Amino acid sequence: MRVSEIDTPALVVDLDVMERNLARVASYAQEHGMRLRPHTKTHKSVRIGKRQMALGAAGLTVAKVSEAEVMAAAEPAELLIAYPIIGQAKLARLSEVARRTRVTVAVDSVFAARQISDAARAAQVEIGILAEVDVGLGRVGVPPTELVHLAEAIGKLPHLRLEGITFYPGHIKSLDDAGLAALAALNTLLGEILEHLQAAGIEPRIVSGGSTPTLFHSHEVAGLSEIRPGTYVFNDINTVRSGACALEDCAATIHATVVSTARPGHMIIDGGSKTFSSDRLSTGAEVTFGYFPEAPGARFHKMNEEHGYVDLAQAGAEFHEGDRVRVIPNHICVAVNLHEQVYGVRGDTVEEVWRVDARGKLQ
Amino acid sequence: MRVSEIDTPALVVDLDVMERNLARVASYAQEHGMRLRPHTKTHKSVRIGKRQMALGAAGLTVAKVSEAEVMAAAEPAELLIAYPIIGQAKLARLSEVARRTRVTVAVDSVFAARQISDAARAAQVEIGILAEVDVGLGRVGVPPTELVHLAEAIGKLPHLRLEGITFYPGHIKSLDDAGLAALAALNTLLGEILEHLQAAGIEPRIVSGGSTPTLFHSHEVAGLSEIRPGTYVFNDINTVRSGACALEDCAATIHATVVSTARPGHMIIDGGSKTFSSDRLSTGAEVTFGYFPEAPGARFHKMNEEHGYVDLAQAGAEFHEGDRVRVIPNHICVAVNLHEQVYGVRGDTVEEVWRVDARGKLQ
Repeated sequence: MRVSEIDTPALVVDLDVMERNLARVASYAQEHGMRLRPHTKTHKSVRIGKRQMALGAAGLTVAKVSEAEVMAAAEPAELLIAYPIIGQAKLARLSEVARRTRVTVAVDSVFAARQISDAARAAQVEIGILAEVDVGLGRVGVPPTELVHLAEAIGKLPHLRLEGITFYPGHIKSLDDAGLAALAALNTLLGEILEHLQAAGIEPRIVSGGSTPTLFHSHEVAGLSEIRPGTYVFNDINTVRSGACALEDCAATIHATVVSTARPGHMIIDGGSKTFSSDRLSTGAEVTFGYFPEAPGARFHKMNEEHGYVDLAQAGAEFHEGDRVRVIPNHICVAVNLHEQVYGVRGDTVEEVWRVDARGKLQ
Repeated sequence: MRVSEIDTPALVVDLDVMERNLARVASYAQEHGMRLRPHTKTHKSVRIGKRQMALGAAGLTVAKVSEAEVMAAAEPAELLIAYPIIGQAKLARLSEVARRTRVTVAVDSVFAARQISDAARAAQVEIGILAEVDVGLGRVGVPPTELVHLAEAIGKLPHLRLEGITFYPGHIKSLDDAGLAALAALNTLLGEILEHLQAAGIEPRIVSGGSTPTLFHSHEVAGLSEIRPGTYVFNDINTVRSGACALEDCAATIHATVVSTARPGHMIIDGGSKTFSSDRLSTGAEVTFGYFPEAPGARFHKMNEEHGYVDLAQAGAEFHEGDRVRVIPNHICVAVNLHEQVYGVRGDTVEEVWRVDARGKLQ
């Protein structure tokens, strides 16, 4: 099958670029002696998880128990659920996964840790725990001052294995001056956190953290022993704008068709919020929904569910109904989740088609 | 199964409210002698399409050929694809649907009409056409001055059946003073459009149009003979804000669980942009992603893929980890598309569970 025969809208991955992305981060982690446990929320495919494992990943990361159930098929040496798992139904399923796979869960409360301990005891399994600390995002994670208390409480609960700590510096959106200052502050804070743990007699085997914008600065963060990037497999416009990759490192594009040029100076493409997601750019006030590599001046400024509105005033190219276009999305993780399958291409040939196995796995 | 046993996050529909919504619009259309051809993009379920047909709908509407292939199973008397279908692959599939079902396509160019005519001739089927006119949204549709030319060209193409005209006044977001003025202007414009068609000897059998905010004013639009609302089956916060329904008419809520209260005055729920979509409100500058009927002051102000951030400063209620909450999404159509299934409940009982059959049908 030729690329031009893929019906649109479709998610298309340039395999050469993806393989280069996968190899680059695998080498980076190896070079700096860090564990790499990629977050599979971006690709949601067992096939890609297997490739990450084959390239030396220490394990895989997921956000939901349902994703863990799917991704266990990639046979990760260790599977991290980087999310507080709450509730009996999920914990029973988590325990089942723990029978087959070495499972670790991120936890930010004694309440959650106790529930997991109870479920693990009932199922006669052991579950690893990373105590989560908030380093500035204000999402999950206890304040740094409460981390020792949380880690000690976890350490006392049966059937749990305190593996270490975890954090997510999602407040650092790019490595501009403010971002670099925030990274330096994170480094200082993490040093203090590790000192407090040591003073309490806690030696974390794993210090897991980092984010896509800070990815290639991970080795500068003292004490960090594990990274779990997700987006790097495909990259997207947010990653480019954060400074963590170049445009040519974007492996995934949405192929679309021009379906209307009835309005002069504009075109409508056959993808909107149900194809790209309605995620805006993660930084700045500009409202655009994707980048046209073949027409960088085309402005994808608005969408409805199945319509993309593109202003062509600065496009420097003409488009006609029926033309095919390529668009790099703002945020590839949410875009992938809208597609049933991905077309892996090399040059002009479709080499493989894979399912988005964990698409829609919400529970 | 009790409602409290549904694992979260999950899309839950109050069947009493949904049935009231379906009946209300069916009665409205009947009372005013208008054809009702509901847009199924909101529910994407054959089961609901059948209920709409049973309540007297003249047919069903879809946006994509793949949706048409799914929704044909609801056995609509007429199936409208309210989207310009471009490309040989889709047109071959469209022709297959046309063998089983009376199919009509919205078209805004002679280019598209000719492609459909060629495909219909090759398959020896007839396909209905609605000529689309732009009445102010600037999306698809020819300018009003070009509609006669488009309709005449369609009329000359073999294997096409010119059914009439279609428009979508999506620029009217609510019925405030500006919206009512826009509705009056639309009425005038449509009068002129119909006069021009009549002068050219074209009598449209169907004049199809309207939008959710203007739904219950459709009978005031002179010449309008068909409405194709979608959102009314479930409604959402955008519909409430547009004035087209009340909060108690919102049939669909996302049930979620509080997974972290580590940050004082805030909570994190187990749904974000992969559960609700990242659609903001369709009007106003406020950035919120849903409404908590049990805590109207809770402010759902931010999301990541699997995390919803809720500011509780004005919530007037306390929440703890493990608590279940209900959220009415901003835009139900994109939220439904993220879920595999829907739980239909009456009171405290789960009465039926249905698949989102056309979820992810993009091509």
